[in-house]
Amino acid sequence: MSKASKAWYEPLTPLNFLERIASVMPHRTAVIDGNNRWSWRDFFERVNRLSNALKGIGITRGDNVAFVSRNFPPLLEAHYGIPLTGGAIVAINYRLSAREISTIVNLSGARVLFVDAGVADRVNPEDLPNVEVYVNVFNGRDTYGETVVKGLPGVAYEEFIAGAGAEYIRLDLEDENDTIAIDYTSGTTGTPKGCIYSHRSAYLHALAKIIEHSVTASSVYLWTLPMFHCNGWCWTWVTSGMGAANICMPVPDPDRIWSLIEKHGVTHMAGAPIVFHRLGQYMDENGISRFPKKLIMNVAAAPPPVTMLRSMESKGGEIRHAYGLTETYGPFTICEWNPDWDALPEEQRLALKMRQGVPDITAGCVRIVDTDGNDVPKDGKTLGEIIMRGNDVVQGYYQAPEENAKAFKDGWFYSGDGGVFHSDGYIEVKDRFKDVIISGGENITGVEVENCIYQHPDVDEVVCFGKPDEKWGEVVKCLVHPKTGTFPTAGNIIAFCRERLAHFKCPKEIEFGEIPRTSAGKVQKYLLREKEKKK
Amino acid sequence: MSKASKAWYEPLTPLNFLERIASVMPHRTAVIDGNNRWSWRDFFERVNRLSNALKGIGITRGDNVAFVSRNFPPLLEAHYGIPLTGGAIVAINYRLSAREISTIVNLSGARVLFVDAGVADRVNPEDLPNVEVYVNVFNGRDTYGETVVKGLPGVAYEEFIAGAGAEYIRLDLEDENDTIAIDYTSGTTGTPKGCIYSHRSAYLHALAKIIEHSVTASSVYLWTLPMFHCNGWCWTWVTSGMGAANICMPVPDPDRIWSLIEKHGVTHMAGAPIVFHRLGQYMDENGISRFPKKLIMNVAAAPPPVTMLRSMESKGGEIRHAYGLTETYGPFTICEWNPDWDALPEEQRLALKMRQGVPDITAGCVRIVDTDGNDVPKDGKTLGEIIMRGNDVVQGYYQAPEENAKAFKDGWFYSGDGGVFHSDGYIEVKDRFKDVIISGGENITGVEVENCIYQHPDVDEVVCFGKPDEKWGEVVKCLVHPKTGTFPTAGNIIAFCRERLAHFKCPKEIEFGEIPRTSAGKVQKYLLREKEKKK
Repeated sequence: MSKASKAWYEPLTPLNFLERIASVMPHRTAVIDGNNRWSWRDFFERVNRLSNALKGIGITRGDNVAFVSRNFPPLLEAHYGIPLTGGAIVAINYRLSAREISTIVNLSGARVLFVDAGVADRVNPEDLPNVEVYVNVFNGRDTYGETVVKGLPGVAYEEFIAGAGAEYIRLDLEDENDTIAIDYTSGTTGTPKGCIYSHRSAYLHALAKIIEHSVTASSVYLWTLPMFHCNGWCWTWVTSGMGAANICMPVPDPDRIWSLIEKHGVTHMAGAPIVFHRLGQYMDENGISRFPKKLIMNVAAAPPPVTMLRSMESKGGEIRHAYGLTETYGPFTICEWNPDWDALPEEQRLALKMRQGVPDITAGCVRIVDTDGNDVPKDGKTLGEIIMRGNDVVQGYYQAPEENAKAFKDGWFYSGDGGVFHSDGYIEVKDRFKDVIISGGENITGVEVENCIYQHPDVDEVVCFGKPDEKWGEVVKCLVHPKTGTFPTAGNIIAFCRERLAHFKCPKEIEFGEIPRTSAGKVQKYLLREKEKKK
Repeated sequence: MSKASKAWYEPLTPLNFLERIASVMPHRTAVIDGNNRWSWRDFFERVNRLSNALKGIGITRGDNVAFVSRNFPPLLEAHYGIPLTGGAIVAINYRLSAREISTIVNLSGARVLFVDAGVADRVNPEDLPNVEVYVNVFNGRDTYGETVVKGLPGVAYEEFIAGAGAEYIRLDLEDENDTIAIDYTSGTTGTPKGCIYSHRSAYLHALAKIIEHSVTASSVYLWTLPMFHCNGWCWTWVTSGMGAANICMPVPDPDRIWSLIEKHGVTHMAGAPIVFHRLGQYMDENGISRFPKKLIMNVAAAPPPVTMLRSMESKGGEIRHAYGLTETYGPFTICEWNPDWDALPEEQRLALKMRQGVPDITAGCVRIVDTDGNDVPKDGKTLGEIIMRGNDVVQGYYQAPEENAKAFKDGWFYSGDGGVFHSDGYIEVKDRFKDVIISGGENITGVEVENCIYQHPDVDEVVCFGKPDEKWGEVVKCLVHPKTGTFPTAGNIIAFCRERLAHFKCPKEIEFGEIPRTSAGKVQKYLLREKEKKK
C-alpha cells in the first residue's frame, strides 16, 4: 500500500474528536453557559456554521483569526470552527492593555477579529490596520445579564454564524504538523512571541490530558482557566475527546466557582494555585467543608503552596500538579503519582506532590542543565535551566527568527525556568532561572523562602525576590499579603525564617501589600525587582 | 525551526513508554509469572539485554525475528527488545500445526527463532532453512513446574540475554511508520498473511486502550489473551504506558484465571467471549459469586452472548465490548458507553452492549457497504460489508501484493465481516460476510439465530451455518453443545426457535457436539460448512 492511498494513515488533529463525539453522543451536554445548554450535536452545528461563515469571507489555510474574549461558548466554538477552515486561532489575553492587544493582532496578521463586547474597551480599531471584519461576541447583555455592553462596529456573532450553512466539511489536512493555533506569550519583557501550535501536537497533548486527568464521558469540566491561556492548556480540545461537558464562566470568582460546582456536579477544573487558594478561603469563610463529589484539579503555572494542597485535599479535591509554558502547549511535566506514595504521612506526601514531576505520557524529554549546557546532578539541590524536547514543544515563534535562535538550540527548547532534579528523576521548579537570588555568591531560590513563610499563621500570600545590595550583591526581600484581620510585623516574619532556614537565605526586608500577578496567575517578580533597582 | 532539529518532533513509538516508566516507577511491579516478579527496572534491564544480544548477532532494521511461545515473560520482553534493534517481532500462534508455523517463519524470512520449549514439538527445524539461531525460552521445567521440557538445539534464553550488556540504546527511529511487528492471520483459508504493524499506530492504539479501558498505574492486567494474537491486541504495549502490572499465564484455564484474580487483585483482562463464559461457569460451579474487586474486561473476537454479559456483570465484571481484526491491530471499534444508558432496564442495556459500536478515539472511520460499494442505510437491518480506514488499519500484508490489492481498495480496508449500522451510528457485526446464510433469497445471519438459541435453558454453546439445499439454496443448520447433564433434542430446539423467530430463519437440522474454534476463540464456521458440502 502506498501512503497516498491512506487506508492506514490519517493526520492527527483534535478536530476529529468533535466529528466523532457529535456522532457518538449527540444528545449529551457539550456546553453550559448560564441558563443556556448546547448538546454535542448543537455545538457541532454551530462550529460548522462558524467555519463555513469564515470560509465565506475568504479565510483559508495560512490565515490567522484573532479572538479577544472571556470564557464564553463562542471562544470554545472557535477552537474548532477556525481550524476547520485550515486557518489558525489566535486567542488573545483580554486582560492585556489595548496597546498590547493591538501589537499581537498586528503581529498575527489577522484580518478577522472576534471581540467579546464586555472587553471591547481594550480593542482600538484605529490601531489595527489589517483587520477587515469585526465580529461581536455579545451585543447587549452578556450571559449573566450583568453587563450591558456595546460591541464594535461590525457583525454580531449569532448573525455571522446564522448566515452560513451547517454542513460539515472535513478539513483535508495535508500535513498534521500544520498550524492549529498561535499563542502569544504575555510579552512581559519585550515583544510578544507567537508560539506555533500544530494539529498533531494538540491532538497528542489532549490524549495525554485525558489519561493524566482521568477524563471520561461523565466528566464535567469547569472553565476556571482562561481559554486564551495556551488554548486552556489544550482543555479546549480535551472535552470533545470523551464527550465531557464544558461549564463556561467568564471570570473565575470563588463564589461563582463554588455555585457552579454545586449546581453542575463539576468533576474537573484547571488553573493556577491562586485560583484554588482563593476557592479554599471562600469555602472556609462560608462554612463549606466538602466538594459535592471528587474534584480533580489540574494545577500549574506556579508552584502550589502546601497550605493550598492541604486545603483542597481536605475538601475532597485531588491535585494533579503539572508544569509547562506557552512554548509547551501548557503543561509538559506532571507529578505522576506513584500509588506507593498514598500510604506516606501527609507531610511527606505533600512534599512529593509539590514537585513538578516528569514528562507526561506524550510530552517528550526534559533535562536540567548548567550554563555550559551540562546536565546537573540528580541531587535535589543543584540548580540549572530546564530544557525540553518532544511532541509537546512548539514549532517555534511565528515570524521571529531571532527569538527562535535564542530559545531553540541544538534540538532543545530552553525554558528559562530554573529547577533541580531529584534522585528519582522528578524535577522541581525553583524559580525563573533569572529570578534566582545570588547573595554572597550563594544561589537562593525565592520559592524555598516563600514555602517557609507560607507556614507562618498570619501569611495569606508571599513573594520573595532579589534586592540589589552593595555588600552581598543581592539580598532577599519579601512582599507579604497578610491574612484578613492579622497584622504581622517584619521582625516577626524574619525571626520565623531564622528559626527554619539558613541565615543567608532569610529575608533582610519585608514589605506588606498586594502581590502583582499576570492574568495567568503568575507572580510578576520582575516588576518587584525593577522597582527595587529604581530606588 | 526546521523539522530536522527535532526540538518539537519525536517519532511515535511505544518503546518510549518503557523508557519513561522504567525511570518514573522503577520499583513498581512490571511482570509476575508464577512465583517470579520483575520490577519495571528489572524488566527494562532484561529488555535491553535482549536487544543488545540480538544486535550482537546482527539483527537490525528490516529484520524480522520470530517467536513461538505461550504467555511467558520473555515474549512480553521481546515486544520491546526486538523493535529496539530496529527489527520487527513476528509472534506466532503456537497452536498452529508445525507445517503452518514453518510456513509463517519462512514467509517472514526470520533468521532468529525463539521457542517456548513447552511447545517446541510444533517447530520442525528441518523445514526452516533460513533460521540460523534458535533461542529456547525454557530448557527444563516451565514457570509452574508442571512440564519437564527439552528445547531445540540452541541457546537458552537466560544465557542469551545474560551474555549482553544492560545499557539502554534508544532506537533512532527514522520514520514512525517503520514496522514494529508483523502479525500473521491464522490463514485458515489459504496462505497466512502478514499484517504490517507500525510504531506510530501501535503507539496510538495503546493510548486508545489506556483511555477506553481506564488503565492506571494501579491496574493489574491478567494475560488471558494470547500475546501472539495481534500482539495481545496491543496490550503488550499498554501496560508500560501507565506502569500497570502484567500477570502472565501460559494458557487461560478458568481455575487458574480465578486463582490469579484472587491472588493478585486483577483489575483488567482481555479475550474472546468464550474465555469469560467458561470463567463464569467455573465460578458458578464453585459457588463464587463476586470478583474481589471491579474487573474491566476487554471482550472482542466474537459477538458476546447475552448470558455471558449477564453472568460477568452479576459478578462485578464490566464488559467493554470491542471489535476488530488482525488487520486493525485487534479492536478497531468499541461499544462506547453512553452514561445515559446506565439507567436503562437490564435487557435494553445488554442489547446495547452487545453491539460492536464506533471507532475508538484514535482508530479512524468505519463504513458498511453493499456489494456495489454504496453505504447501507442506518436502519439496523440492512447487511453489508464492514470497511475501515485510519491509523488503526495496518499498512498492508507483508510481501503479498495480490492479497493487498484484494483487501485494500480506494483507501479502505475491506474486512470481509458483515454487519449493520444502527440509527445511532453504532455498528453490529452479524457474521463473516461470507458466512451469511442465503435461504430462499433471504439473508440470514447465523448470529441472530444463535442469540435466540442461547436463551434455551439447556444450551451451553451454539453455532449456526448454511447447509446446501436443493430447494432453498441453503438452509440453517446448527451445532449445539448442551450444558453438562442436559440432553436437549433437535425437535425441542427447533420448536423453541419457531416460537421466537421468523420461520425461514429457523434451523432445519441440529447436530450436537463440540464447537470448533481457532486458537483465538473464533468459531470456525467454514469448517462446518465445508463438512456439509462434502456430504
